[in-house]
Amino acid sequence: MTTQELTEQIFKKKSFLCVGLDTDLEKIPTYLLSEKDPVFSFNKAIIDATHEFCVAYKPNIAFYEALGVDGWKALKKTIDYLHSEYPELYTIADAKRGDIGNTSRMYAKAFFEDLGFDSITVAPYMGKDSVEPFLEFENKHTILLALTSNEGAFDFQTLRTNGEDLYKKVIETSKGWNNAENLMYVVGATKAEYLADIRKIIPDNFLLVPGVGAQGGNLEEVCKYGMTKNVGLLVNSSRKIIYASDSSNFAEIAGAKAEAMQNQMAEELEKL
Amino acid sequence: MTTQELTEQIFKKKSFLCVGLDTDLEKIPTYLLSEKDPVFSFNKAIIDATHEFCVAYKPNIAFYEALGVDGWKALKKTIDYLHSEYPELYTIADAKRGDIGNTSRMYAKAFFEDLGFDSITVAPYMGKDSVEPFLEFENKHTILLALTSNEGAFDFQTLRTNGEDLYKKVIETSKGWNNAENLMYVVGATKAEYLADIRKIIPDNFLLVPGVGAQGGNLEEVCKYGMTKNVGLLVNSSRKIIYASDSSNFAEIAGAKAEAMQNQMAEELEKL
Repeated sequence: MTTQELTEQIFKKKSFLCVGLDTDLEKIPTYLLSEKDPVFSFNKAIIDATHEFCVAYKPNIAFYEALGVDGWKALKKTIDYLHSEYPELYTIADAKRGDIGNTSRMYAKAFFEDLGFDSITVAPYMGKDSVEPFLEFENKHTILLALTSNEGAFDFQTLRTNGEDLYKKVIETSKGWNNAENLMYVVGATKAEYLADIRKIIPDNFLLVPGVGAQGGNLEEVCKYGMTKNVGLLVNSSRKIIYASDSSNFAEIAGAKAEAMQNQMAEELEKL
Repeated sequence: MTTQELTEQIFKKKSFLCVGLDTDLEKIPTYLLSEKDPVFSFNKAIIDATHEFCVAYKPNIAFYEALGVDGWKALKKTIDYLHSEYPELYTIADAKRGDIGNTSRMYAKAFFEDLGFDSITVAPYMGKDSVEPFLEFENKHTILLALTSNEGAFDFQTLRTNGEDLYKKVIETSKGWNNAENLMYVVGATKAEYLADIRKIIPDNFLLVPGVGAQGGNLEEVCKYGMTKNVGLLVNSSRKIIYASDSSNFAEIAGAKAEAMQNQMAEELEKL
């Protein structure tokens, strides 16, 4: 999907919500466990109930890998379901990969070609040749970790290096890589005030913002400092939506939570 | 496996060779492609031919993920084969994972519990709470990226931060994490002269050293600067061994290459 198509969908749906599919057998309603593929059953119900209110889904790959071969099958079924039923929805593989060039190329093939995701999250520590193989794919986005939403973000990402914080240096440097127009960035909502500075470096690129909700970030703050005239934001919510209830009407309640967030987002879009 | 058991195996076999299983359908002998599971057939042949000369195997997870469900099946079969036939061999999941705490825990479960690897490579960018969930596992090692062997290593890893290079800061900081005794570090052979400085910070921890061979690193240099009285080194070679030949005797030739490296290693161990 192109950046423009994503933007058009955001304005049409008045939503820049991404629903995180961190599907965990220990957290989904127990009655689903007797189904043949409980992970897919859960995802399908969540997707059917929330797709009107969001523009993207982000399976967290760790949760599927933890289930081995069955997990990969469930991931494949989920992404195939999205492609066939809701092809307008944007898909993010939250995989945080990154390795030497020939290996990153294999990861890119796995997520962009075999699974058909629109984008993947990638870690910057190994530098240019670990990220560029992802950037080569046309109409696919590479979402680089810049400033994450966890406590450990302050261990290295905010270290001063030649007068600026490492995460800013990462963003600055990445602008010079081949096909940099395919870059988006992860910036945690728990650090919304940092967004103003980040926008000085990348005024237009999309930001994927985790940490609204369960991790304590605030949507209004994120929009105040991070929104562009073309929105430029995908705000992710996982646990707060998909685990809002563990009863038999879990999907309906997830839908209501997603709708509530979409309403808030529509208000923010009014301000543009 | 404990660090002591690994060390004992190294002295017994006079080898600290790790064979990287970067198994690629485009590079293995073409006649294997007609087999039911070409990846496993290739790995089995390589393992049978090289196990006498090495102490560890390191499947590069990207190469398996690129094959989807079939790739995960081949990975599982490979690790199960190692466990049943050669249980003394150490296993490394070269996965370079790292995410917020609850997600890293899922990755740890996938690689340590479900697949039963002895260790996994992990990226440091997200800090303490992204790595500690891996460190909690008893008799398992977490191999943190410090200074990698690729060109992009110089983009961020060697940036000066508060008077020292980022990779040194990563190593220093990680020493304070819970269960830090379970840490090993990735240090590329292409930067062997950096090993002397690294040994000042971590005199004892094992280092996993990629880049000898295909990427141009030199074994003698690595040992000169990086070896401890308990060896403390695992030197990886992937392509130079497993793709030494693509003819029907590929495994035999891989065995000969591994033996040649083992001979060099035995000489280095003599110097202790």
